[in-house]
Amino acid sequence: MSDKVYKKIEVVGCSDESVENAVALAVAKASQSVRGLSWFEVKEIRGSVRDAKPVEWQVTLDLGFKLD
Amino acid sequence: MSDKVYKKIEVVGCSDESVENAVALAVAKASQSVRGLSWFEVKEIRGSVRDAKPVEWQVTLDLGFKLD
Amino acid sequence: MSDKVYKKIEVVGCSDESVENAVALAVAKASQSVRGLSWFEVKEIRGSVRDAKPVEWQVTLDLGFKLD
Amino acid sequence: MSDKVYKKIEVVGCSDESVENAVALAVAKASQSVRGLSWFEVKEIRGSVRDAKPVEWQVTLDLGFKLD
Amino acid sequence: MSDKVYKKIEVVGCSDESVENAVALAVAKASQSVRGLSWFEVKEIRGSVRDAKPVEWQVTLDLGFKLD
Amino acid sequence: MSDKVYKKIEVVGCSDESVENAVALAVAKASQSVRGLSWFEVKEIRGSVRDAKPVEWQVTLDLGFKLD
Amino acid sequence: MSDKVYKKIEVVGCSDESVENAVALAVAKASQSVRGLSWFEVKEIRGSVRDAKPVEWQVTLDLGFKLD
Amino acid sequence: MSDKVYKKIEVVGCSDESVENAVALAVAKASQSVRGLSWFEVKEIRGSVRDAKPVEWQVTLDLGFKLD
Amino acid sequence: MSDKVYKKIEVVGCSDESVENAVALAVAKASQSVRGLSWFEVKEIRGSVRDAKPVEWQVTLDLGFKLD
Amino acid sequence: MSDKVYKKIEVVGCSDESVENAVALAVAKASQSVRGLSWFEVKEIRGSVRDAKPVEWQVTLDLGFKLD
Amino acid sequence: MSDKVYKKIEVVGCSDESVENAVALAVAKASQSVRGLSWFEVKEIRGSVRDAKPVEWQVTLDLGFKLD
Amino acid sequence: MSDKVYKKIEVVGCSDESVENAVALAVAKASQSVRGLSWFEVKEIRGSVRDAKPVEWQVTLDLGFKLD
Repeated sequence: MSDKVYKKIEVVGCSDESVENAVALAVAKASQSVRGLSWFEVKEIRGSVRDAKPVEWQVTLDLGFKLD
Repeated sequence: MSDKVYKKIEVVGCSDESVENAVALAVAKASQSVRGLSWFEVKEIRGSVRDAKPVEWQVTLDLGFKLD
Repeated sequence: MSDKVYKKIEVVGCSDESVENAVALAVAKASQSVRGLSWFEVKEIRGSVRDAKPVEWQVTLDLGFKLD
Repeated sequence: MSDKVYKKIEVVGCSDESVENAVALAVAKASQSVRGLSWFEVKEIRGSVRDAKPVEWQVTLDLGFKLD
Repeated sequence: MSDKVYKKIEVVGCSDESVENAVALAVAKASQSVRGLSWFEVKEIRGSVRDAKPVEWQVTLDLGFKLD
Repeated sequence: MSDKVYKKIEVVGCSDESVENAVALAVAKASQSVRGLSWFEVKEIRGSVRDAKPVEWQVTLDLGFKLD
Repeated sequence: MSDKVYKKIEVVGCSDESVENAVALAVAKASQSVRGLSWFEVKEIRGSVRDAKPVEWQVTLDLGFKLD
Repeated sequence: MSDKVYKKIEVVGCSDESVENAVALAVAKASQSVRGLSWFEVKEIRGSVRDAKPVEWQVTLDLGFKLD
Repeated sequence: MSDKVYKKIEVVGCSDESVENAVALAVAKASQSVRGLSWFEVKEIRGSVRDAKPVEWQVTLDLGFKLD
Repeated sequence: MSDKVYKKIEVVGCSDESVENAVALAVAKASQSVRGLSWFEVKEIRGSVRDAKPVEWQVTLDLGFKLD
Repeated sequence: MSDKVYKKIEVVGCSDESVENAVALAVAKASQSVRGLSWFEVKEIRGSVRDAKPVEWQVTLDLGFKLD
Repeated sequence: MSDKVYKKIEVVGCSDESVENAVALAVAKASQSVRGLSWFEVKEIRGSVRDAKPVEWQVTLDLGFKLD
């Protein structure tokens, strides 16, 4: 009855603005090729620096979706 | 003289908006039953997805408070 | 040709506002004494609580820069 | 709307029979003092040995429940 | 001669009954889209609770298979 | 027969003197509100510095006790 | 008075049936060469797959015993 | 502007010769089905032994590539 | 010339007094059956509690020695 | 207002006597070249053995200090 | 039928030349006292430095072999 | 007598050729500004890919040296 199987994929979203935006970008992009995304897990937050400022937020996350 | 004992509890705050808001919610809620909260530690950031967008930020955190 | 050596230092940025702001502060401060910062890695997010609210975001991060 | 706060507690269930039974015991026991348990996470599996046989399964788990 | 390349995918199997059954379900489901599965690694065991009983075992596992 | 359930709580003991003393303080304090403590596990050792000397030992530990 | 020294060894038990059986096999086998086994700790659960089914449970565990 | 999304896959390369060669094999193999590989991360190094010699290097690695 | 092989064994020393004493006991005991111990690494510190006091320090450590 | 940046350095203190003494030595030595040390975090405890006794305690620790 | 028990031992191989050579030395040495080694797992890679050059590769590894 | 204090710094060496070469480059570079390097610890191995081949080995390592 409750037997279900999910798959997880690992992606990295990159944004100029914030951690939350990098996650949203990765989720939106992955939704183009995978149906039924249902959760994400943040695994790593890093970024690049230019002129003494953080200029890119790179967020590694796992995305989970149900296998039909 | 500096002998003190703190206790830590683990909570999960959920917010539609951001990581920072999920932490604030968890801290506010825990303050209703525990006196003297003094610090938090973020342990895990995850969330749920609907219609190709992150719709909930679930932040697991430890909260520390002094035992009287 | 691609032989390069980078060094990493560990800093803690503290901000009243957000995780992103704490990182920006740490990066700006470190740039005063180190040339050529090129990336950061968030290692820990914690903070302090007062009056049932998070009042400081303390973000530990590694900063990488190229050795000339 | 989706703003919720959960608390997690850590317990150790001990059973003569199996990992699954040790979890069930811990969940049943904790339900006597906590309302609204909603999930568990297995953190460690160990046990004791007598006469060359495993005689007790000790399962450490986190239990999550909603704060009203 | 012994040069081989394997790929690993991450899935979550859910079962009402036991850890072993959740793994079997995940392996069976994944076999429908991937040829030549050869090993699994259990990464996380969790589940949900209802009426003071564990009612679902959710087992996260890596599945390995040979790339032709 | 061997069916038992234990609960674990996390505390931080602070002492001017030593790691061992910080543990003893935390155990003594926790015993005032919890019956039947039976073991501890050291999870983190840190402290503060003043005038080039360690002046406080802060030891984070888990304490286990049997649920009646 | 309570001065004791234990040694730990690492073994891998393999069973067709279940995690619990793999542990029992490893404990039984190790008891043939070591006296006074007193506890085990599960460190890793993995296995092999054939014909879309898990066909072997490989459980890595630490075994502890008292040094006379 | 800097908004990009990367995906990571996990593979295991096996070589008779060295760690470096096992990575190269895995990268070459994965390039046959994935476009635009840009980095790898070594996660585990293990191997098999025969006649008192290591005869196979099995290197688990993550491979990252840009999603178009 | 510098080719050497060391072996590591894992032991648990138990003492009424202190962490340092538990290590010394484990080292002394292990020296009765192993020649040429050269270093130790503390892996875990735990203990048991009675009458609101820590009454035993159980220190898990790795011991390294040279294979002749 | 609460905007501050701290830096962390990693040192190893070695003492014949105890863990506490090794930390004190490392803190004292580091104070000669760094101003304003404010906390330490113990990361690893190991040591060397001679004549069946631990003869040196090597404690790896992080030291934090405020950047002006 | 598939019931088997393996044992793992931990060794450190040291070589002037390379990681691969340090593993081969450890495997060869261990084969003198243990029959039927079948796999190794690299756990740590470190070494010593003299005159601005790495002069020794110290590789900690687990070795697995079947118990008869 | 055996009281010594070491400091550790974290660097990343990059080489076209091998893991061993990346370590050697990092050690050589760091020796230009630090006296008395005595050991290294490999913490991460990663790299970049071009034309289906690994073209750079990026090795993160800790370097230890004695404080005078």
